[in-house]
Amino acid sequence: MTRPISSPRNERLRWLRRLLGDRRQRRREGVWVAEGLRLAEEVCAAGGEVFLWAVEESWEAGDERAAALLAAVTGRGDPVVRVQRGVLRELATTETPQGVLAAFAAPRWQLDDLRSARGPVVLLDRLQDPGNLGTIARVAEGAGAAGLALTPGTADPGNPKALRASAGALLRLPVVRVASPPQFLESVGLPVLTTSGAGGTPYDSAPLGRPFVLLLGQEGGGVSTELAAVADARITIPMAGGLESLNVASACAVILYEAARQRRAAGAG
Amino acid sequence: MTRPISSPRNERLRWLRRLLGDRRQRRREGVWVAEGLRLAEEVCAAGGEVFLWAVEESWEAGDERAAALLAAVTGRGDPVVRVQRGVLRELATTETPQGVLAAFAAPRWQLDDLRSARGPVVLLDRLQDPGNLGTIARVAEGAGAAGLALTPGTADPGNPKALRASAGALLRLPVVRVASPPQFLESVGLPVLTTSGAGGTPYDSAPLGRPFVLLLGQEGGGVSTELAAVADARITIPMAGGLESLNVASACAVILYEAARQRRAAGAG
Repeated sequence: MTRPISSPRNERLRWLRRLLGDRRQRRREGVWVAEGLRLAEEVCAAGGEVFLWAVEESWEAGDERAAALLAAVTGRGDPVVRVQRGVLRELATTETPQGVLAAFAAPRWQLDDLRSARGPVVLLDRLQDPGNLGTIARVAEGAGAAGLALTPGTADPGNPKALRASAGALLRLPVVRVASPPQFLESVGLPVLTTSGAGGTPYDSAPLGRPFVLLLGQEGGGVSTELAAVADARITIPMAGGLESLNVASACAVILYEAARQRRAAGAG
Repeated sequence: MTRPISSPRNERLRWLRRLLGDRRQRRREGVWVAEGLRLAEEVCAAGGEVFLWAVEESWEAGDERAAALLAAVTGRGDPVVRVQRGVLRELATTETPQGVLAAFAAPRWQLDDLRSARGPVVLLDRLQDPGNLGTIARVAEGAGAAGLALTPGTADPGNPKALRASAGALLRLPVVRVASPPQFLESVGLPVLTTSGAGGTPYDSAPLGRPFVLLLGQEGGGVSTELAAVADARITIPMAGGLESLNVASACAVILYEAARQRRAAGAG
């Protein structure tokens, strides 16, 4: 085995650093980077192309899951480089060291991947926080949504924080970027529901059992006026106490799980 | 008006910095710090004691909400200090400058504040992330929960990130720390439900219409074995796709809103 990389200026490590920090680089190359054992396992399980595994020296010592993963990726013939202890940490975007990074082919989705499914489509309008994007992807996958559509200005699904918060959902759930949201809505042809702090249909009285588009807006600012105008209906989550609204990911969880409940009820009925 | 504070070493600014950064300091003094207009408005509306408002020079210029808040706190006779532009930013825990900080008396809750309410109590077992704690407080208030109970090792509700994520809910929702979770559960005397990745009662078939304790665990690790053993029932949120679980705040949102729905249905029936 070759000697472990000891310099943070090593070319492959610099490539990983650029991918972790720069969304344009990720989009140009179509490569994302997963950090840490759990996400690395998801990347391996997803079966797509992995361009580079960067593994800290002795990372798998005494850790069965780590050793099993390393055996699997070595068995597949994936390129693996070893990195000296501490050097990988300088790349990491997390506070706690992760020990493994994987640079892999970003998933590619088409509009048809959203159209072919039974569940709702979540259209995110300029959502800012990558953590919220990842959390929404996770709950969308869990609740059986068809996938996500992102307007220009929405956080990048390849952002390391988004990937981590998604617990791997962003590797599997169809996610498309839409240049023109109105055109997108016309082409999917589904009813468009958006949330409203008050005055909308209570979410659990709304007809959510059949496919629809759930339009959710930016933290703080909500959905743009232009897009809100094309919504077919507004739904409201009742709020006790002094709050105006839920966190966007919490609201998404409540609505998508109500939709799943209604689909189950319809299927059973 | 006195000259604005220009030195980050000013004693009052150093006090604010210690409070923002050190949970022991916050607990010792019983003082929390709110950052930014929205939270500052909530602090003012809550009507409790505010020990210090630190406001950036010209912060309220051209901003009606900021000007109204400043007029209100000045009218109440609260102590206000002006701080030179840029100096306050060095204190802030957010990336975007906030312009206002308020050091206020942390809310004090008793066990009885949890017992007197109709909604469920959320018991958080060593939850690590202050953002998750704040998001859970927000959804708990919105869904009409009685409040939160925190085991030792859980994130601090006075953490600036928790306060921000709560959108002010942590100023209003009863939150108690419990030294001995089993003793706490015995004293509240409610059925204890916890979540399980599989094999529990589907959450929407579980009887959630009457008060209960929802026991939720640490991100990643879940509930401790000792505490899980005292739960009366396990509930499961059905998961599509390849996921094992939802984010803890998403799971909390789904369950607490199902509980609110069942209470409404029972009230209507």
